[in-house]
Amino acid sequence: MSFLGAVALGLAASAQTWIWYPGDYEIWLGNRMNNNRTERGAFFPPFWKTDSHYVTVEFSKQLDLAEPETIEIAVEGKYNVKLDGKLRFGMPSKFELPAGKHNLNIKVWNQSTPPSIYIKGKTVNSDGTWKVTNEDKEWIDESGKASDTSATEYALAGYWNFDDIATPPSTFNLKTEPQDYVSVVNKTTDGGKLYDFGRETFGSVVLKNVVGDGNVNIYYGESPEEALDLGHCETLDKISFGSGEVTDLATNESRKRAGDYTLDNTRAFRYVYVSPEEGVNVGDVAMLYEYAPVEYRGTFKCSDPELNKIWDVGAYTMHLTTREFFIDGIKRDRWVWSGDAVQSYLMNYYLFFDSPTVKRTTRLLRGKDPVTAHINTIMDYTLYWFIGIYDYYLYTGDKAFVSEIYPRMKTLMDYVLGRTNADGMLEGMTGDWVFVDWADFPMSKQGALSFEQVLLCKSLETMKLCADIIGDKGDAEQYGRLAADLRAKLLPTFWDDSRKALVHNVENGKKSEQVNKFANMFAINFGYFDEPTTRQVMDSVMLNPEVPAITTPYMRFYELESLCAQGLQEQVLKEIKDYWGGMLREGATSFWEKYNPSDSGSQHLAMYGRPYGKSLCHAWGASPIYLLGKYYLGVRPVKEGYKEFSITPELGGLEWMEGTVPTPGGEISLYVNDRLIKVKATEGSGYLYIKSKNKPRSNYGSFEKIGDNSYRLLIDTHKEITVNYKHV
Amino acid sequence: MSFLGAVALGLAASAQTWIWYPGDYEIWLGNRMNNNRTERGAFFPPFWKTDSHYVTVEFSKQLDLAEPETIEIAVEGKYNVKLDGKLRFGMPSKFELPAGKHNLNIKVWNQSTPPSIYIKGKTVNSDGTWKVTNEDKEWIDESGKASDTSATEYALAGYWNFDDIATPPSTFNLKTEPQDYVSVVNKTTDGGKLYDFGRETFGSVVLKNVVGDGNVNIYYGESPEEALDLGHCETLDKISFGSGEVTDLATNESRKRAGDYTLDNTRAFRYVYVSPEEGVNVGDVAMLYEYAPVEYRGTFKCSDPELNKIWDVGAYTMHLTTREFFIDGIKRDRWVWSGDAVQSYLMNYYLFFDSPTVKRTTRLLRGKDPVTAHINTIMDYTLYWFIGIYDYYLYTGDKAFVSEIYPRMKTLMDYVLGRTNADGMLEGMTGDWVFVDWADFPMSKQGALSFEQVLLCKSLETMKLCADIIGDKGDAEQYGRLAADLRAKLLPTFWDDSRKALVHNVENGKKSEQVNKFANMFAINFGYFDEPTTRQVMDSVMLNPEVPAITTPYMRFYELESLCAQGLQEQVLKEIKDYWGGMLREGATSFWEKYNPSDSGSQHLAMYGRPYGKSLCHAWGASPIYLLGKYYLGVRPVKEGYKEFSITPELGGLEWMEGTVPTPGGEISLYVNDRLIKVKATEGSGYLYIKSKNKPRSNYGSFEKIGDNSYRLLIDTHKEITVNYKHV
Repeated sequence: MSFLGAVALGLAASAQTWIWYPGDYEIWLGNRMNNNRTERGAFFPPFWKTDSHYVTVEFSKQLDLAEPETIEIAVEGKYNVKLDGKLRFGMPSKFELPAGKHNLNIKVWNQSTPPSIYIKGKTVNSDGTWKVTNEDKEWIDESGKASDTSATEYALAGYWNFDDIATPPSTFNLKTEPQDYVSVVNKTTDGGKLYDFGRETFGSVVLKNVVGDGNVNIYYGESPEEALDLGHCETLDKISFGSGEVTDLATNESRKRAGDYTLDNTRAFRYVYVSPEEGVNVGDVAMLYEYAPVEYRGTFKCSDPELNKIWDVGAYTMHLTTREFFIDGIKRDRWVWSGDAVQSYLMNYYLFFDSPTVKRTTRLLRGKDPVTAHINTIMDYTLYWFIGIYDYYLYTGDKAFVSEIYPRMKTLMDYVLGRTNADGMLEGMTGDWVFVDWADFPMSKQGALSFEQVLLCKSLETMKLCADIIGDKGDAEQYGRLAADLRAKLLPTFWDDSRKALVHNVENGKKSEQVNKFANMFAINFGYFDEPTTRQVMDSVMLNPEVPAITTPYMRFYELESLCAQGLQEQVLKEIKDYWGGMLREGATSFWEKYNPSDSGSQHLAMYGRPYGKSLCHAWGASPIYLLGKYYLGVRPVKEGYKEFSITPELGGLEWMEGTVPTPGGEISLYVNDRLIKVKATEGSGYLYIKSKNKPRSNYGSFEKIGDNSYRLLIDTHKEITVNYKHV
Repeated sequence: MSFLGAVALGLAASAQTWIWYPGDYEIWLGNRMNNNRTERGAFFPPFWKTDSHYVTVEFSKQLDLAEPETIEIAVEGKYNVKLDGKLRFGMPSKFELPAGKHNLNIKVWNQSTPPSIYIKGKTVNSDGTWKVTNEDKEWIDESGKASDTSATEYALAGYWNFDDIATPPSTFNLKTEPQDYVSVVNKTTDGGKLYDFGRETFGSVVLKNVVGDGNVNIYYGESPEEALDLGHCETLDKISFGSGEVTDLATNESRKRAGDYTLDNTRAFRYVYVSPEEGVNVGDVAMLYEYAPVEYRGTFKCSDPELNKIWDVGAYTMHLTTREFFIDGIKRDRWVWSGDAVQSYLMNYYLFFDSPTVKRTTRLLRGKDPVTAHINTIMDYTLYWFIGIYDYYLYTGDKAFVSEIYPRMKTLMDYVLGRTNADGMLEGMTGDWVFVDWADFPMSKQGALSFEQVLLCKSLETMKLCADIIGDKGDAEQYGRLAADLRAKLLPTFWDDSRKALVHNVENGKKSEQVNKFANMFAINFGYFDEPTTRQVMDSVMLNPEVPAITTPYMRFYELESLCAQGLQEQVLKEIKDYWGGMLREGATSFWEKYNPSDSGSQHLAMYGRPYGKSLCHAWGASPIYLLGKYYLGVRPVKEGYKEFSITPELGGLEWMEGTVPTPGGEISLYVNDRLIKVKATEGSGYLYIKSKNKPRSNYGSFEKIGDNSYRLLIDTHKEITVNYKHV
C-alpha cells in the first residue's frame, strides 16, 4: 500500500459510537418508557402488541488496513469475535487486526437489552456503516467449507449519540435538575401539605428530612382539585419508611434508608399533596425535574403579548412531551401514539428540529414484523405513520432513513392492503379501532369512511415517493397506480354535490348524509380538490357554522391549517387567541388534551368518565407552534431538506412579528412589519413571496412581479436581506 | 349458590403451577441452552434466527366463586391485577376475590425472562385452563367505555412442572451429582494430568485444593487423543486463580476464591487434561455430572450379550442427549436440530416416553412468526418437524398439543408452500440448506429432490390429520387435496422403470440418473409404494450393493427401519451387530455422529476438516433403541395414544428376548422365545400377531388364523397372557 493509500484510508476513519440492529434500541427503550404509566399505583402497560429486540445479532465489517492496528471492543451481551471466519478465544476487550483485507465479525446475544457493540481503533470504528443481521446462516458442510451466505439479509447498523465507551445504550436516562416548589398550603385535616410547583412539570418527588417510621402518601395533581381528591386523582405513590429501609408499596421495591428520599417513579404534576401517616414526618419536599436536552431552535415573538404567551406555553408543552420519544401527554398516557406523534413531528420542525427524536419515534411505532394489528390498534394511526415519513423526508431530506425504514413500510402497507374492500378502500374490521377524533357528535365508524380513504391515498403516495427514493421502480409503479386509482375514486364515492362536500362514509352501499370537517380538511391540505372545489368546500364545510365544530386541539391542528392554507390567517389568529387564549385564561400552564370553551370549572378536568381523566399537558395541544412558523412567518421547505424553501410571511393582523425557523443545518430568521421585512437564510435557497401595494425594494436581488400586488424575490445568499414594501 | 354447587366447584379445583404464553418458555430456555456451545473458548451461538418470548402478556380467567377466597400471587415480571376491568393498587402478593362471577386479569412485562404467574387459592389456581394473549386491545372510548375485545386472540396458557411457588420457571436447572474420575495419568512434560472418567459424560469440572496463583488450563476430550492435543481439542477452559478471586478467562467473569472451584461451564468429555501454569497447583479433580431426571421406562434384554450392550450404550447416549431439549450431541453442537430431534422423539417413545421433552423441543424448533427461513435453515428439517407431530400424536394421542401448535403449523406450511415450484414441489432457493445426509458420494442439491417431495407429502398429510383433529374442515380439505396431488405426482416425476427406483432429482426439467436410498426408503416407510413396487424397490435399491451405502447412523435409522418393515429382522440384526458393535469394538461408550467401518485409528475422530470435529455422543447414533422396541419386541400404536396397539414379536435369530415398551399411562411387557410368549399390556387393547407352525394356545382368549402359519390374538385384558406356539 502506498503512502497515499494510507492517508486516504486514514481520512475515512469515523467517530466511533455504540451500534445495534436498526430499530431495536428504540423498541427496547420504548418498552421501558411506555411501561412507566401507572393509574393510581397500578402498573399500566400498553394494550397493543409489545415487540422486543432481536436477542442475537451479528455485526460485521470488511476491512482494508494499511497497517496493523489494535481495536478496543466493548459489548452489551455475551459475544464472540471472528476474523476471516476464525473464532478467537473468549470475549476479548482488545484485539490486534493485521494489515490487509479482512472480515471482522462480532456476534452478540443479549436477552435483556439490545445487543450493542462499540469498537475503537485508529481507523476501525463502530458506526452506521457496519452491517448487521439477526440470521447469519453461516453453516458449514462436512468438509468444514462455509455455506454461501448470499442469502443473509444485512441492514446497516443503528446508532444514536452513544459515542462514549463508558455509556452503553442500556444506561440511557434523560437529564435531571433539582427544582423547588413555589408555595405550600397546610391541610390541617390530616396533617398533609399541598405543594405548588408553579407550573405543569415532570419528574420525581424528593422527600427531605423524613423523621420516624410509617407510610407517606403522595397524591399528584395537574390541578389542585386533583391533588386533593385522594380517592380520584390519577396518580399517587405510597412510600413506607421503616427502620433500615424505604419501600415503594406499589412495586414492593426497597432500598436502604439514607438521607433524602427521591422516588424512583417520575410523575406529571403541578401540585403534590404529601400526606404522612401516623409516626412519620416529612420535613420538606422538592423535585428532580426530568427532561430531554432538546434546544429551542425555533422562536416567535410579535406585537400581541397573548399570542407570545400562547407560543411560549406551546413550546413548553412540546418540551415536556418530547422525551425518550414524542409522547401524547405526560400524566396520561405517557405512551407513543402515532396520530399524536405525527403532529409532534411537524411542531418539532418549527421548534427543536430534532430529527433523532422523529426517527426514534417512527421506529418504535412501527415495531417488528409480523404486523398483527394497526399501529396502536388504530386504523388512522397506521396511515399517519406513513404520512409522518413523507413529512420527515420533506423537512430533512434524509434519504438514509427512508432506505432504513422502507422494508418495514412495505410490510405494514401489505397489512393495510390486505384489509381493503373490493373497491380498494379500508373499512374497520374486527379489532380495528377506527378513531378519527374525540367528537361531541355521533359519528359512524362503520363502512368506508371518507377520512380514512383520504389518509390511505396520501399513504400510498408516500410509498411511491419512498420507492422512488430508494430506486425501486416496480414498487413505485405499483404504489403510484394504487394511489392514483384510489384518488380517482374519492369524489365519485363520497362527493355530495348538493352539500358541496365529501360525506362522512359509505355504509352497506349507502352514501351517508353526514358532513363533517375531517375528510374535507385533509383533502384541502393534501391538495386533493381542484381550486374551484376547494373554494366551494371552504364555504360549504370549513366556514359553515352548521357543520359540527371540532373540540380537540388535535383536529383543530388540521382544521386551522386548512384555513391558513387558504389565506385566512386573520381569522385563524382570532381563533387561536380565543381557543388557546381560552385555556390560558383557565390557568393553563401547558396545553390540554381537549378544551371545550362552553365547559366551566372542574368540567375542564374530566374525561373518559373520570373526574381528572383529562391530560392537561398534551402534545397535540401545542399546534400554534406549527401554524405560526409555517403560515405566519410562512417558512416551509419546497424541496427536501430545505434545499429549496419558500417564505410567505402573513401578519394576519399583527403589527409586527419576528422569529426563527430551524432548517437541517441552519435557520431562516425573519422580522416583518407592514413596511419592512428582514430575512436571513443560512442554508438553501428559495423565494420570498410578498404582497405589496408598490414594487418592493431590497438590498439584494430584485423582485419579480407574479400577479396583482404579488411579488417574489430569489434568495440565494446567506446574508440578511432588507425589504421595503407596503403591506396590502 | 347451593351447597351442591359449591361442592361441584370445589371438585373443579386444580393443582396450581407456573404458567406462561405457550411456547415462550421453551424459546427462552432454548436460547439459554443453544448459547452454551463454545469452540475452543469462543462463544458459539446458532446461525439461525433466534426468537424471544413475548415481553408483555396478559393472563385471564373467568371466575364463578361460591364464596370469597384469597389467592396468593407470584409473578416473574412487573405486573398489575385487574378484577372486572378495575386495576388494583400496586403488585399485590395476596388478593381477596369476592364470591360470584368475575373476570380476573393479570398483565405482566418482563424483558429478560418469560412473563409467568403462579396463583394459589382454594379453587382459583393457575393452570393450563387460563387464557393468555400478547395483544389485549382493551382500549376505552372518551366516555370510559371499554372496547369490544372480541378481536383479542387468546391461547391457553403454557406450563410444565413448576408446581412450587418458590421455584419460578426462570430458575430451572438440570439435576447434578458429584462424580469422580476412574484413573489418572501424569504427564511429566508440562506437569499436567490426564483424568479418565471411565465413559462419555457431561458436566462441570471441579478443581480441588488449588494452591497458589496462576492459570489452570483445562482441555477436554471425548478421546485421549483430543484431550492431549492442546492445539486442536474442540473445547477448553482457562481459569485464572488470583489472590482473592477466580476468573474464567473466556467470559471474564470472576467470583470470590473460596474452597473447591466448580466451573460455570458444562462440557462433554470422557478425558480431561488439567494443566496448571507456573505458580499454581491443582490438588485433585472431580466433576459435577449434569443430567435430565428422565426415567428408563423402556427395557430390552436378549440372548445376545453384544446386542444388550448396544441397547445399553444406546440408552445412555439418549440419556446424555436428552436434556432441557433433545439435542444432537453433547460436545457439539449442543443445539436442537429438527432432523435429529425427530429421531430422538421416536427413540424416546421406546425408552423414556417423556412427552414434555418432545413438546418442549417441538415448540422451540418452531419459534415465532414470521417464518423467515427453514427450521435450522434446512429444508428437510422443516418437513421433519411436521412429521414429528404426526408421530407424537400417534404415540401419545395428545389432542391438546395439536390444538396448541396447529396455528404455528399453518404459518410454517404457508412458508413452505410459498417456496414450491409450478409443480407444487420444493426446490432449494437462496438461503435454503438442502441437507439430506452427510454422504460419501456426490449428490446434487439442485432442482426438485425426490427425497424432499416424499417428506413434503408426509408433511401435508400431517397437516390434514391435524386439521381433522381440531375440526377445521376447510383446512383438512385443502391439505388433503395438496397431499393427494403431490403423492400422485411422485412416481410420474421420479420413477425410473428401468432402474425400478425413484431417482434422486429432476433438475432443469431433466430426470437424474442417480439412484440412492433416501427417497426410496422413506417411500417404503410411509407406504407410498404399492406392495409389488415395494418388493421391487427392496431388491433394486435397498438390497442392491451397487446403490451407494449409507454411512451415518442418522440415515441408517430409516434404512434399517425399511428393512425391518419388510420382515428382514434377521439381516438387520446382523447389521446392527456389525455397525453398532463396530463402534463398541472401537471403544465407544456412547454412539457417534458418523461411523465408517473402513476408517481406522484417529480417522474415527475427525470430521468437518477438524481432527476432533466428530461428536462421539450423538442422539442419532442410538437408533437400535427404536428398532429393537418397534420391530423386534414389535410393539407399536395402531390408534393414537395406544388406544389400540399391535404386538408383532420377531426374534430375528435371537434365542430369546424380553423387554418393556412404555405407553402414555402404562406399559407393554414381553418375554419371547421360540415356543413361549408372555405378554402384558397395562393399558389399551390390540392384537398379538405371531407366526407359528401350529395353532398357538394361550391362557386368555383364542387365536384367530389370518394366513399361512399366521395367527392373531385379541388382547383386551391388563393381565399377563402366556402363549405356547412353535416358531416358524
